Amino acid sequence: MAVYTDVTEPDLSAFLGLYDLGRLLSYKGIAEGVENSNFLLRCDAGTFILTLYEKRVARGDLPFFVGLMEHLSARGLSCPLPVANGAGETLGELAGRPAAIFTFLEGMWTRRPSADQCREVGAAMARMHRDAADFPIPRPNALSVAAWRPLFEACDGRADEVRPGLGETIQAELDHLEANWPTDLPAGVIHADLFPDNVFFLGGELSGLIDFYFACNDFLAYDLAIALCAWCFEPDGSFNATKGAKMLGGYAGVRPLTPAEIEALPLLARGAAMRFCLTRLYDWLNTPDGSFVTKKDPVEYLRKLLFHQRVRSVAEYGVPAERLTS
Amino acid sequence: MAVYTDVTEPDLSAFLGLYDLGRLLSYKGIAEGVENSNFLLRCDAGTFILTLYEKRVARGDLPFFVGLMEHLSARGLSCPLPVANGAGETLGELAGRPAAIFTFLEGMWTRRPSADQCREVGAAMARMHRDAADFPIPRPNALSVAAWRPLFEACDGRADEVRPGLGETIQAELDHLEANWPTDLPAGVIHADLFPDNVFFLGGELSGLIDFYFACNDFLAYDLAIALCAWCFEPDGSFNATKGAKMLGGYAGVRPLTPAEIEALPLLARGAAMRFCLTRLYDWLNTPDGSFVTKKDPVEYLRKLLFHQRVRSVAEYGVPAERLTS
Repeated sequence: MAVYTDVTEPDLSAFLGLYDLGRLLSYKGIAEGVENSNFLLRCDAGTFILTLYEKRVARGDLPFFVGLMEHLSARGLSCPLPVANGAGETLGELAGRPAAIFTFLEGMWTRRPSADQCREVGAAMARMHRDAADFPIPRPNALSVAAWRPLFEACDGRADEVRPGLGETIQAELDHLEANWPTDLPAGVIHADLFPDNVFFLGGELSGLIDFYFACNDFLAYDLAIALCAWCFEPDGSFNATKGAKMLGGYAGVRPLTPAEIEALPLLARGAAMRFCLTRLYDWLNTPDGSFVTKKDPVEYLRKLLFHQRVRSVAEYGVPAERLTS
Repeated sequence: MAVYTDVTEPDLSAFLGLYDLGRLLSYKGIAEGVENSNFLLRCDAGTFILTLYEKRVARGDLPFFVGLMEHLSARGLSCPLPVANGAGETLGELAGRPAAIFTFLEGMWTRRPSADQCREVGAAMARMHRDAADFPIPRPNALSVAAWRPLFEACDGRADEVRPGLGETIQAELDHLEANWPTDLPAGVIHADLFPDNVFFLGGELSGLIDFYFACNDFLAYDLAIALCAWCFEPDGSFNATKGAKMLGGYAGVRPLTPAEIEALPLLARGAAMRFCLTRLYDWLNTPDGSFVTKKDPVEYLRKLLFHQRVRSVAEYGVPAERLTS
């Protein structure tokens, strides 16, 4: 739940005075997202989202994030569009924080993804990769393979508190990932956090992508590996190959995969599972007991990691390799 | 911050199917309120609030709360109006909880109340008292004088952990309040929690009252005593007599006070300060450290209590008694 900074009406009205949105009618903090403070804003001009950027988001990255959403919107991808004020600026300051106003996207995120939704997500991700290809600002992925061992070391040898043997499993897997991580795959801007709560559907169709605050430059297929982990496992931990096939097929229908990407996918998926296992492990060990923040279970991603370790080829995700190339 | 229960789209769509509000377009959890889960709902028919009632609200009280808002809306008071479904019901069930849909009130609560806003709040409270006079369902005040000592005892003698001497101050004050609490003042339905976050303003005018989930039957002047505590002190702890005068004058302009109410007001204000000091003390001692819930400081209400203890007559709140009678 995310409202870390409250805003007074006079401050917000003054901020809105720079925009051409009419009178402020109401604003409510939204209990979604964890990095920033978000408000649903109603003005004469309609409904918008106001975001105050908290400390976890580096100020220097804001032109990348906001610029990317502007760029993708201009290409016709449905995502929040930063609203420019009278001076043409999309980033301002409010309550001592960087702040921006975005158009409001109708739609709901799905708590129980269907196979068809997986296909739509794959296709939307491929469109995003294509549309972002000429986005000019670079941003390295701060949570890719080089960051995982330091993150594990920051857990101070406490992994086994969560599950006996977890530390050893992670050590061995880090050795494998570091030794085998690809160096030459098609790269570009990836979303890097395309979980179900960041994808809206309306009337059975995908209506938009949100929350680009982990977006960065990395291998395009790594984004797909993250989405396989996030969308295609059932609550009981089993991998749903129908969903996997739809996700991969939806993606490849827009942007066919290269043979190198197809071969690398199981390894990239191990990496994706490791990345979320590690950030969850760190948060698990460092979130106070009794906190009202829901701790996400690192063991869920350990299980996904163990699944991907056993995958020998992309066919085990539900689709033969030849269906994914052009 | 308050979303304790999440809702899936299929469940919400099925619930909405009972209403005549068109398609569901979006819903977002709202980070306001502490008792219930609230969502901002957008449908073809407009914007609404969806409330899921959590355990802290007794199911048996819901017809009182929802009925009261319906009653007050029908009298022209601006408050959330429960929306009836096709069967004429305003209360249903969603995600295993009692649930209701309300009209959305535009407006913002004020983080820094002005004297004029205090006057408007006083007047709105008096209108509410008048409009609720013929509301037929009774609900005793579970947090009035008889409840305070048990609440203090539930704090297990730990008051001095918050401030040395606090326990003794509360003991002595409880003796005084129990011995002197009035028994025969004008009574009726009171809001009982009319703090700034429960009053909306728009364009300089009061646009509505919300959150009737502490409403109950009690002395009408006790509601005013609560509002004096909640609105008329400055952040440095000083009482603002201009705000006090406006609040009391605004109220009396709609519903003149009786001499007995005027005489009782300082004692009622001591009681109001005690009630919030005690609930805050209990929550302070029973909320885990490191929790992301903001603990409210009981000492703020101890200071208000000490102020009201020194008040000899209503004139010290900023207004001569004769200006408050008809």
